[in-house]
Amino acid sequence: MGLIVQKFGGSSVADLDLMQIVAAKVAETVAAGHQVVVVVSAMHGETDRLIKLAKAINNSPSPREMDALLATGEQLSTALLAICLINRGISACSYTGAQVPIYTDDAHNKARILSIDTKNIRRDLAAGKVAVVAGFQGINEHGDVTTLGRGGSDTTAVALAAALQADECQIYTDVKGVYTTDPRIEPKARLLDKITINEMLEMASLGAKVLQSRSVELAGRHNVPVRVLSTLEEGKGTLVVLGDSHGANLLVSGIAFNKDEAKIILSGLSLQENHLMRLLPLLSNANIEVDMLVQNHIQGGDSQEITFTTHKNDFEKALNLVQNHFGHDNRVNITGSDQVAKLSLIGVGLRSHANISGRIMLALAQENIDVQLITTSEIKVSILIAENLLENGVRTLHAAFQLDGNPDQEYMRAAAQ
Amino acid sequence: MGLIVQKFGGSSVADLDLMQIVAAKVAETVAAGHQVVVVVSAMHGETDRLIKLAKAINNSPSPREMDALLATGEQLSTALLAICLINRGISACSYTGAQVPIYTDDAHNKARILSIDTKNIRRDLAAGKVAVVAGFQGINEHGDVTTLGRGGSDTTAVALAAALQADECQIYTDVKGVYTTDPRIEPKARLLDKITINEMLEMASLGAKVLQSRSVELAGRHNVPVRVLSTLEEGKGTLVVLGDSHGANLLVSGIAFNKDEAKIILSGLSLQENHLMRLLPLLSNANIEVDMLVQNHIQGGDSQEITFTTHKNDFEKALNLVQNHFGHDNRVNITGSDQVAKLSLIGVGLRSHANISGRIMLALAQENIDVQLITTSEIKVSILIAENLLENGVRTLHAAFQLDGNPDQEYMRAAAQ
Repeated sequence: MGLIVQKFGGSSVADLDLMQIVAAKVAETVAAGHQVVVVVSAMHGETDRLIKLAKAINNSPSPREMDALLATGEQLSTALLAICLINRGISACSYTGAQVPIYTDDAHNKARILSIDTKNIRRDLAAGKVAVVAGFQGINEHGDVTTLGRGGSDTTAVALAAALQADECQIYTDVKGVYTTDPRIEPKARLLDKITINEMLEMASLGAKVLQSRSVELAGRHNVPVRVLSTLEEGKGTLVVLGDSHGANLLVSGIAFNKDEAKIILSGLSLQENHLMRLLPLLSNANIEVDMLVQNHIQGGDSQEITFTTHKNDFEKALNLVQNHFGHDNRVNITGSDQVAKLSLIGVGLRSHANISGRIMLALAQENIDVQLITTSEIKVSILIAENLLENGVRTLHAAFQLDGNPDQEYMRAAAQ
Repeated sequence: MGLIVQKFGGSSVADLDLMQIVAAKVAETVAAGHQVVVVVSAMHGETDRLIKLAKAINNSPSPREMDALLATGEQLSTALLAICLINRGISACSYTGAQVPIYTDDAHNKARILSIDTKNIRRDLAAGKVAVVAGFQGINEHGDVTTLGRGGSDTTAVALAAALQADECQIYTDVKGVYTTDPRIEPKARLLDKITINEMLEMASLGAKVLQSRSVELAGRHNVPVRVLSTLEEGKGTLVVLGDSHGANLLVSGIAFNKDEAKIILSGLSLQENHLMRLLPLLSNANIEVDMLVQNHIQGGDSQEITFTTHKNDFEKALNLVQNHFGHDNRVNITGSDQVAKLSLIGVGLRSHANISGRIMLALAQENIDVQLITTSEIKVSILIAENLLENGVRTLHAAFQLDGNPDQEYMRAAAQ
């Protein structure tokens, strides 16, 4: 018997039928002998309805009142879910953020949780009740309602799990867990049993939007075991493990990708100057974020080259900026493209293995995929390729690093556990 | 400069356009130099939407969770109204019942207010803010959300006015105030400037649904001057005055009526027995409420007669019950009708005047309206007549007691004040 925090997002409680499915999941966990704290978001569509009402009055409504308004969305979900649970004979009790209470700072619309008083919830758990807590909200020191911003319900769940020293924090989503890559691109993508927090952070920041980075960080800081799993499908999902290894003997855990990249190349740069010292402040002052960055000095050559990538939306702006500041020197050649994509192999196993870059290059070369740029960090290797080759690139590397599985078999194995 | 509590019901905040009208009213009061506390109900339709959601899960949902759910309706209104006010440059701040806090007893769905802590509101008023308070809700000693039941926002407003020792509690409705009778029946009905609390209570209990009886009682107990007025139309409305007299030299202040009556007559009852001692427990055990009740002993006769009225819905049930318990004695004759209506003249002036019954009888006789039953209390005379004669009866007595006015002139006078 343990203490489990279960979080269900807005699409999991979008209507009463779905809410009954959630209630059944909670009931199952209770029947297994666990104490359960449920965190819920607003019913899908409710938050947008409230925002629309407020914006019809004023396009930038008072942040305090906006939070007071939005918080009703989750309160509605918690009360309805509690009614569903009670209807199943499960003793349950809804909580607003203020009723827990969950204390946050003053930053309306993007507040941070400062502390959670678990006295009330512990009393209810001890009395055999399920506590149904409104995600995404808290109160500041004056008792004003605050919200944590989008994705805040994940943060509420992890923070509650930390405060209650829960055995597990289960984040229910519309996918079965974390896959080796996006199954829409590679049908052989395999569901991962486990992933480390650092791998998860890399996956999340690269566009695998299963979990908010902020809640993963929080889980890491407070040693909360997080499990990502599906509301609608059976299975054990993916456990985000604490520490440095997930025990599996994998080189690569997954492949993430991102189509929102654009690259700019400055070639023919003089050897004498530190061009990065000029380039980087230039871009950051213009709020342009640099993602990949490589500086080359071709062996024996008399010039150097800088290649960097940025978000596609900033491509034109960055290109103009670079041309204005570096283009006056006619030895410098400036080119760029927004038809590129980034592909990243992520895995704690990469740390201890050399020449991953070589294996990547070789595998892609066999498919005539040209690697335009390659950067490496401790548990990640990222490459830049032509955007139209992205899907082929993902499949090629998925096979080359033995990530392929049989989705159906995977499903059956997970269900049988 | 004073402190005014203004209450707006669900139909006054049914949509954003109406809410802007409410905001304009509040702004007007602020501009006149007053401190303002606004109490709002849920937007019309919102409470029904929430009830429908809950009942789709369980027909008698948990009272605690039902209250948590319903309370979101008023929270939504308060936040939106605060946004409207801020949009007009008025500093405003929304309050849930818990944020005030308004403490109630434990009786979910029909809680009673125990006390109100005015510290937070007073601080905001002192800082020049308008406090927008959610009506209809509070918290119990455990911090659970409670609701006061239908019409509870009136009670919230009066209780807040009492706690804050406000100069006036203004209840905004969809009528201009309290009329001498229903203007749909008698177009010459006149808007009353003032009415006493006792008169108001009699009017309310007789179906003039301008104010909940409970809030009128509360106003009387705590000496809160209440004014009933219209959200959409200009005018000073009707002031519900404390004490025993409204200063006007009126015999009758208004005529209320009620079509939901039915009468049952037991005649030929023996003189020896106390039939009421049998009849009344019989009816009350069956949850049948007796309204008017008259026992006659015809001078020189050898039998007595009992006539009583009850709600139309209970007519069949009451008739069967009486027949089963009194019908076996074949000297007793039992008859009844549900084609009757009750008409009541209300006025503090009645207290000091004799023979009102005579004047009523005379006026009605001239119109060939037969009075079937007459009962009197300190400030009220009620008569029972045939239902199809009700409108004629109201108009006849309205004229006979000099209540007729000219609605247009009335309107202009009220607007000019």
